[in-house]
Amino acid sequence: MKEAIYEAQKAAEVGEVPIGCVVVVDGKIVGRGHNLREHSQDATMHAEILAIQEANAFCKSWRLPEAQLFVTLEPCPMCSGAILNSRIERVYYGAMDPKAGTVGSLMNLLDDNRFNHQVIVEKCCMEAECGQLLKDFFRNIRLKKKKSKRKD
Amino acid sequence: MKEAIYEAQKAAEVGEVPIGCVVVVDGKIVGRGHNLREHSQDATMHAEILAIQEANAFCKSWRLPEAQLFVTLEPCPMCSGAILNSRIERVYYGAMDPKAGTVGSLMNLLDDNRFNHQVIVEKCCMEAECGQLLKDFFRNIRLKKKKSKRKD
Repeated sequence: MKEAIYEAQKAAEVGEVPIGCVVVVDGKIVGRGHNLREHSQDATMHAEILAIQEANAFCKSWRLPEAQLFVTLEPCPMCSGAILNSRIERVYYGAMDPKAGTVGSLMNLLDDNRFNHQVIVEKCCMEAECGQLLKDFFRNIRLKKKKSKRKD
Repeated sequence: MKEAIYEAQKAAEVGEVPIGCVVVVDGKIVGRGHNLREHSQDATMHAEILAIQEANAFCKSWRLPEAQLFVTLEPCPMCSGAILNSRIERVYYGAMDPKAGTVGSLMNLLDDNRFNHQVIVEKCCMEAECGQLLKDFFRNIRLKKKKSKRKD
């Protein structure tokens, strides 16, 4: 999870909402990603999608049946779906996302036996650290906005 | 929808499950995609994801608020999520997907007011044609398997 946090910090450094993700197979990181939605202007460039794509390329397979995915924020529907599609075995996530999270907050897409795959999930891993990254990021944005208003 | 079917045929021609998609803005196709999961060995390479990525690049924006998406099969959770994330206005789809469809079959992620965006959906557009493509594809696979068994 520390490596996912490191990825999230990389996102913050370039002004993106700090969300980071790594995919691990046999104890080795085979995929990394951090949120790049604004820089890429691509709605699909979430941390999890980028990490899964890199893991698929590394493993030369769209199936990742023994993989573990670590992500700093609860996955959205798109990323939950990508986790199902790639048959990832386990997901560990940090902060809950009450607005768009679909792995426990609004619903749990990863534990719905109507789909052809279910995922073992561990919530709230290093939750405080993962949440703090997001809080700091949004507080800085609010401070910047206040400062620019004062200048006007 | 005819253009989405044309994309699905391209997938079939290269041995992929025939699913095709186009994204339209102001009456113009700005994104195209067809399923390439097997060729790419990438679990995220669904028709909708590829079409949305192309549309984002064309429009130079992750937001596609006036876009219409046409797809031959009911979207899965990943693609439903990508549609929400890109703020697409309308979705038209062909065949229902009772196993993994999340726009009417198992649930409706595009009409859930807990998310920050909802999508207007028209189901079963050219349903017979879209479904026939899939039926033909899987029948051919079964025939090939039978033939190879007879050879053994």
